[in-house]
Amino acid sequence: MFNYRLVLAYDGSRYKGWQRLGGSDGSIQGKVESTLSRIIGAETEISGSGRTDAGVHARMQVCSFKSENAIDCADVLTKLRHYLPEDIGALSLEEAEARFHARLSCREKTYVYRIWNTDAPNVFERKFMYRFEPALDIAAMERAASTLLGKHDFSAFCSLKKMKKSPVRTLNKLKVERLGDEVRLTLSGDGFLYNMVRIIAGTLIEVGSGARSEESVYEALISLDRQHAGFTAPAQGLILYDVRY
Amino acid sequence: MFNYRLVLAYDGSRYKGWQRLGGSDGSIQGKVESTLSRIIGAETEISGSGRTDAGVHARMQVCSFKSENAIDCADVLTKLRHYLPEDIGALSLEEAEARFHARLSCREKTYVYRIWNTDAPNVFERKFMYRFEPALDIAAMERAASTLLGKHDFSAFCSLKKMKKSPVRTLNKLKVERLGDEVRLTLSGDGFLYNMVRIIAGTLIEVGSGARSEESVYEALISLDRQHAGFTAPAQGLILYDVRY
Repeated sequence: MFNYRLVLAYDGSRYKGWQRLGGSDGSIQGKVESTLSRIIGAETEISGSGRTDAGVHARMQVCSFKSENAIDCADVLTKLRHYLPEDIGALSLEEAEARFHARLSCREKTYVYRIWNTDAPNVFERKFMYRFEPALDIAAMERAASTLLGKHDFSAFCSLKKMKKSPVRTLNKLKVERLGDEVRLTLSGDGFLYNMVRIIAGTLIEVGSGARSEESVYEALISLDRQHAGFTAPAQGLILYDVRY
Repeated sequence: MFNYRLVLAYDGSRYKGWQRLGGSDGSIQGKVESTLSRIIGAETEISGSGRTDAGVHARMQVCSFKSENAIDCADVLTKLRHYLPEDIGALSLEEAEARFHARLSCREKTYVYRIWNTDAPNVFERKFMYRFEPALDIAAMERAASTLLGKHDFSAFCSLKKMKKSPVRTLNKLKVERLGDEVRLTLSGDGFLYNMVRIIAGTLIEVGSGARSEESVYEALISLDRQHAGFTAPAQGLILYDVRY
């Protein structure tokens, strides 16, 4: 068996998310698998570093797949670029160590959440930002964000009611910055629960707009109760930005 | 009569260009006029700083229009933002001097032509760049570009065979730069002939890829013959970037 590492980028706007659900299902995984299988000439399953929801984008999604026969990476990459739709891009393809697995080997992921914080339009990046007009207080968001750093049970920031696995994750970075009319959140951690980034973004937006207190964010965290955290910010502002091994 | 200045941005991908052709014609001017007329409650014609072709974008397109009655600019701007489609953005609206006219008063325009110069995909900006894979020689393009600067008869860089008006224009700036995998051309001048920016871009791309000599660009200019210049680069890489008065 040969093992490969494929790096993708995608505009998730018109997809039902990363995960294959069966058939021609509108998932990114399904689209890439069917294209890759046709190119290689053998049914091929790929594993992504993680699932992204419907409408979420990826600047860098790492995948791995196995093949019984060695493939010519340069040739397959060229064909992937030719046959994949223009909103899914194949950035690189190379042989990987036998034990490399895109999800299991992953050490750190970085997500970016982009908020377009003005009533003025942004016609060029509109599909990659969440538009929120009321002015956000960045300093308040930063203070609230800092209380989430470190290793915690993040159950309050997860949309799944029953977790089979541990809800403990380590958040290494949660940067809040203003770039002109954009407010950008950058989150790095060893892993993220279902909707965790979007709920953190929604909760911080509520802090920034004055709808909730700074302190309430840490209170929500330690309550372990989803009801105490903020809204789930829309998928279109979320980008899987970097994956480390 | 009251006179107004409206600044727009648009993603031109799905439009037949700036200029109204009649009816619900798929033009940007037509879309903005019908929306504005409905908001104001009176048939309103707008003048743009210039026409952009089908598929060309604008970071800044300045328009002017007259109204018999004074309008509340803040209110009309909010409504424009609400009713215009998301690929046409109303950036600002304000009262202008009586003699201000978006096209006639224009002193300088800046266009940007963006070339995505690699075989790797760019899923996020794909609609706003022309993809040209062979590596471009920027230094050669810069040298050729410099021969076009200044006041010239640009007939060789115009798609219209018969010009009613003077084909003399002054090109104040023609910058060629590499920004990572992007090659960006920035052109400023007192005006541009039909397809002039796209033909200059196509000609410089031919120089950069070795398909024609640097010297041939100046030779094409002084020949006044369209046949001696290069191809018309595609509309999707072109952006009306700035308009000065």
